[in-house]
Amino acid sequence: MASLTDQLMAEVQPALTTSGGKVTVVGVGQVGMACAFSLLTQHICSELALVDVMPDKLRGEMMDLQHGLTFLRNVKIEASTDYACSAGSRLCIVTAGARQREGESRLSLVQRNVDIFKGIIPNLVKHSPNCILLVVSNPVDIMTYVTWKLSGLPKNRVIGSGTNLDSSRFRFHLSQKLNVAPSSCHGWIIGEHGDSSVPVWSGVNIAGVRLRDLNPLVGTAEDPEKYNEMHKEVVNSAYEVIKLKGYTSWAIGTSCSVLCRCILMNQRSIFAVTTSVKGYHTIDKDVFLSLPVVLGENGVTHIIKQTLTEAEIKQLKSSADTLWDVQAGIKF
Amino acid sequence: MASLTDQLMAEVQPALTTSGGKVTVVGVGQVGMACAFSLLTQHICSELALVDVMPDKLRGEMMDLQHGLTFLRNVKIEASTDYACSAGSRLCIVTAGARQREGESRLSLVQRNVDIFKGIIPNLVKHSPNCILLVVSNPVDIMTYVTWKLSGLPKNRVIGSGTNLDSSRFRFHLSQKLNVAPSSCHGWIIGEHGDSSVPVWSGVNIAGVRLRDLNPLVGTAEDPEKYNEMHKEVVNSAYEVIKLKGYTSWAIGTSCSVLCRCILMNQRSIFAVTTSVKGYHTIDKDVFLSLPVVLGENGVTHIIKQTLTEAEIKQLKSSADTLWDVQAGIKF
Amino acid sequence: MASLTDQLMAEVQPALTTSGGKVTVVGVGQVGMACAFSLLTQHICSELALVDVMPDKLRGEMMDLQHGLTFLRNVKIEASTDYACSAGSRLCIVTAGARQREGESRLSLVQRNVDIFKGIIPNLVKHSPNCILLVVSNPVDIMTYVTWKLSGLPKNRVIGSGTNLDSSRFRFHLSQKLNVAPSSCHGWIIGEHGDSSVPVWSGVNIAGVRLRDLNPLVGTAEDPEKYNEMHKEVVNSAYEVIKLKGYTSWAIGTSCSVLCRCILMNQRSIFAVTTSVKGYHTIDKDVFLSLPVVLGENGVTHIIKQTLTEAEIKQLKSSADTLWDVQAGIKF
Amino acid sequence: MASLTDQLMAEVQPALTTSGGKVTVVGVGQVGMACAFSLLTQHICSELALVDVMPDKLRGEMMDLQHGLTFLRNVKIEASTDYACSAGSRLCIVTAGARQREGESRLSLVQRNVDIFKGIIPNLVKHSPNCILLVVSNPVDIMTYVTWKLSGLPKNRVIGSGTNLDSSRFRFHLSQKLNVAPSSCHGWIIGEHGDSSVPVWSGVNIAGVRLRDLNPLVGTAEDPEKYNEMHKEVVNSAYEVIKLKGYTSWAIGTSCSVLCRCILMNQRSIFAVTTSVKGYHTIDKDVFLSLPVVLGENGVTHIIKQTLTEAEIKQLKSSADTLWDVQAGIKF
Repeated sequence: MASLTDQLMAEVQPALTTSGGKVTVVGVGQVGMACAFSLLTQHICSELALVDVMPDKLRGEMMDLQHGLTFLRNVKIEASTDYACSAGSRLCIVTAGARQREGESRLSLVQRNVDIFKGIIPNLVKHSPNCILLVVSNPVDIMTYVTWKLSGLPKNRVIGSGTNLDSSRFRFHLSQKLNVAPSSCHGWIIGEHGDSSVPVWSGVNIAGVRLRDLNPLVGTAEDPEKYNEMHKEVVNSAYEVIKLKGYTSWAIGTSCSVLCRCILMNQRSIFAVTTSVKGYHTIDKDVFLSLPVVLGENGVTHIIKQTLTEAEIKQLKSSADTLWDVQAGIKF
Repeated sequence: MASLTDQLMAEVQPALTTSGGKVTVVGVGQVGMACAFSLLTQHICSELALVDVMPDKLRGEMMDLQHGLTFLRNVKIEASTDYACSAGSRLCIVTAGARQREGESRLSLVQRNVDIFKGIIPNLVKHSPNCILLVVSNPVDIMTYVTWKLSGLPKNRVIGSGTNLDSSRFRFHLSQKLNVAPSSCHGWIIGEHGDSSVPVWSGVNIAGVRLRDLNPLVGTAEDPEKYNEMHKEVVNSAYEVIKLKGYTSWAIGTSCSVLCRCILMNQRSIFAVTTSVKGYHTIDKDVFLSLPVVLGENGVTHIIKQTLTEAEIKQLKSSADTLWDVQAGIKF
Repeated sequence: MASLTDQLMAEVQPALTTSGGKVTVVGVGQVGMACAFSLLTQHICSELALVDVMPDKLRGEMMDLQHGLTFLRNVKIEASTDYACSAGSRLCIVTAGARQREGESRLSLVQRNVDIFKGIIPNLVKHSPNCILLVVSNPVDIMTYVTWKLSGLPKNRVIGSGTNLDSSRFRFHLSQKLNVAPSSCHGWIIGEHGDSSVPVWSGVNIAGVRLRDLNPLVGTAEDPEKYNEMHKEVVNSAYEVIKLKGYTSWAIGTSCSVLCRCILMNQRSIFAVTTSVKGYHTIDKDVFLSLPVVLGENGVTHIIKQTLTEAEIKQLKSSADTLWDVQAGIKF
Repeated sequence: MASLTDQLMAEVQPALTTSGGKVTVVGVGQVGMACAFSLLTQHICSELALVDVMPDKLRGEMMDLQHGLTFLRNVKIEASTDYACSAGSRLCIVTAGARQREGESRLSLVQRNVDIFKGIIPNLVKHSPNCILLVVSNPVDIMTYVTWKLSGLPKNRVIGSGTNLDSSRFRFHLSQKLNVAPSSCHGWIIGEHGDSSVPVWSGVNIAGVRLRDLNPLVGTAEDPEKYNEMHKEVVNSAYEVIKLKGYTSWAIGTSCSVLCRCILMNQRSIFAVTTSVKGYHTIDKDVFLSLPVVLGENGVTHIIKQTLTEAEIKQLKSSADTLWDVQAGIKF
């Protein structure tokens, strides 16, 4: 007797096993899974691969995502410790990495992550030679540089999640102050993700009205309304969230899914992401920091040349020097 | 002095001029434009080309769509009388065609549309040799056959909008009767789009409860509750809407956009669309009619073999014979 | 024998006949229907009422929308010449109105539309006393004033689509020039919708970079790169689209649906819409013009006080004077 | 000097502090947060309150969600240990509860959860007397009964997530077998969530084709193709996912967000959720089990009366008896 499937369906043409909208997430910790879930609920990818070194966790997360597909759109979800499952990805999000040990130097952490990335990046590129790489692992700026080095890809195809999240946090704080939607509050945080990030106060505006035109002191220590506290809150945000709940996940997941959608749909929107900054704002070293860039299907096509103050350029250069020093100590 | 653009932006890599999610709509009448607008508002394609023979209308529609993009996601929209603008499409929706003249025979209408399609289909295939063709022009079943012939494409890559719309109308009427969402009312109309369509009453169900199990007469002329009127309403719907507003547009636009999304995202959902039915339900002629099929990135991969009654099969065969006779008279 | 419905379902509680997300569209011409279709495909409302004076057209459009619901989310759609069907709306979009006759004076057109609105606005307010009114009919600024007068509603609950569309067109043109997504190109057109609209060049920016900081002449007649042409194109857009396709529909439909979503979801985003401007930018007359406002569930809660040049203020005041003169001639 | 805000904005009308689409999630563990994140990324609610007993965790999760809002639509997010923050909710999702201790009896677990719910449910009802309650905490069927008792709400306004997830898992397994989208694979799991759930094989169909019509043994132990394994996999799924990753979250989060959208938008779709089943399928006790129901803005309006086999009814009744016995031991 014919199988039930044969009784039910006749094949006209074999189903394709791959689709044109595949994304791989490496690392299925809280960050990687927030990225993955965000991609699914927003219908951003048509195929999703999860890669990690823990087969049980991988399988558990894959099943848990799959069990919700009935209520979303159908997406082929795979998970494996073998990078073969990532083949044909248009974008790979790398969230894997070691956490800082108590008392560990930054370079030591970086070196441990470099060693981990040696097992990740060449494998991703091998199976998806045309992909875009989006690095999330910290310290994200250095790890984006490392990824670029390890991948052999052109600079436009290697980005880091960078200060897209810092900018989002900043816009949220501004939003709270003004009781206006964050998407209507415009401001850019650039440079190094985290403590040394640079808020570009000259560009902060609401409906094109520069706050600095209303109050020339805004964002400075002299401002009696203390808007500069917002940037401090941004810097403290990560620490505070980690202290309160143990890790950050939702915001970075949302940030990455939006970058991913912009790239897959060739939207050409502008986001602040980690990119090669050599040649910009007088930086002459091969380092990666966040600047506003135009993102399309082939990654970074243009960098926006913001008009920065001397102090802002100095901060950027200082970050660049620090990163450069750390990079010099990396053993590839 | 440098141009403002050069002052503002530095190019890292040229922007791609094409993207992986391109759709072409041929014919910018009410149906074509409802398809196009539906694709944009639902963020289904990343690039859209409009083709027609009227340059003014084309340019007007293109501009009108473009002026709303600020509030949607960015999509590259082109419009031209030259098929070159359709190059690289993954899916082409053909809505162009002549309308029936008073007293005109069906064959005469078909022949006029065949002559129009001779100028369309080979041009689409020339510029997008790997595309899927979705035919909407009426009589849709014959025109899908004609498109298949003219295109030289394999059968899985040529479909017609078919009874997907009839099924949607049927489910809406059922929905009204039961006060349940149409997406929770399941029923399939197959066969020829329009007057001769076949409602498969054996499959009509709510939460898996077959109406026929509750009332064996449901859908027959003997049913005192007259559920069979629903199919009559479906058949009359097109006529009534045309009588009332002059044409149909929104429902067919929605129907096509959903088929398009299923294909672009490789969703593998089941829809009733016009496909080659030779070899199914004892039909032995090379005709195209609607049956439930699984749609993926490469078009129709599987046909669902519904269990039909003798009467239903007879109706299908009768449609097949009629179409075959008309097809025999076409001059290619 | 029990009816099929009774066999199938048991009632626990009667279904509600109204829902909390109802929108009414008055006028089912091209603009009204583009609004309606845009609301449905973007899942913005949970209930939709269409009102017009043409029962056939109304019924045809209602049916055509309903027939696509299977592929969208379920929305209750009604259509009637009787305003009772609009009862309980949270927002009413008014697109009805007369078109300018050849040689007709502006005041004559306005008076004819006022007479039409006398039959619309009090009826809407009667059935939905807590609604927000969104006026689209032209001349939109005067008709928004008229609507405010006829409605007796507080100013925050009466808005016009205004220069939200002009701003969108401007941002699209900027987007084309820079090859950047329109949503990443920021600029505001304020004042009177149409020929006398005012582009606020001081606020035009990309990633916070003011174009005027790069080129102080940008937007002026002296600018060798002629960015000021963009505003001329915006002004000409409506005329050109109407010349090319006979009317505008998609962009205004998208614009209105986005305003509607912002209000229904209490998003507090900023849009340039027609609002009472008495007391702003030295205007001391009771006129309505577009300024950037914060929109929430109760309509306009805040107006953004842009820093305008003397020339810009002069243009606004000139528009205000013109509108005031026309308004003086209206017979209520 | 005026504050920056006063310089920037003029108030027309105070912003509303509440909106019409508020949802509260009680319990910010993995399940609660997957619900919350799913609601935000799918733009389902316009206001979100999180309630739990751990202030730090609450604040951390709230901040992490808020930091992503720039890339989503604006939603007011609050978090507090005080139920006052839940005031005005249209729907409350309860995910809080104790976990089973090793060797603990079911009744003991239930009693501990009842004691927890005594602190939750009356508080929710006090602040949102018109809300719908959606219970997720396990054992979900008993806890839904408990919630109904504690709330004093009518039965239509108290539901449990029930076998909506089991049904989704079943449809996914069917989908994998057939390589068809899960949303096109129809099947219902009813009864008790978990081990004793009942697959209604008579309703399992693809495009209206009942699998049982193709193979009368499908779903039975005698079926050589062993489709009955699918139900076993469904039952094992929760255990396996918990074993592999420690808990389940994504699928239940997706399931709840979809139920929530259906209710807030009055969609009237059919889902299998925990509801009062007294009077159905010969059950005469006051217990709650999952059956397919129509969900609207006022909760459960209709129950679908599926045609069940004697064996299926027996299983349901057995579950009902077991639950009844446990319920008898609860101390309210």
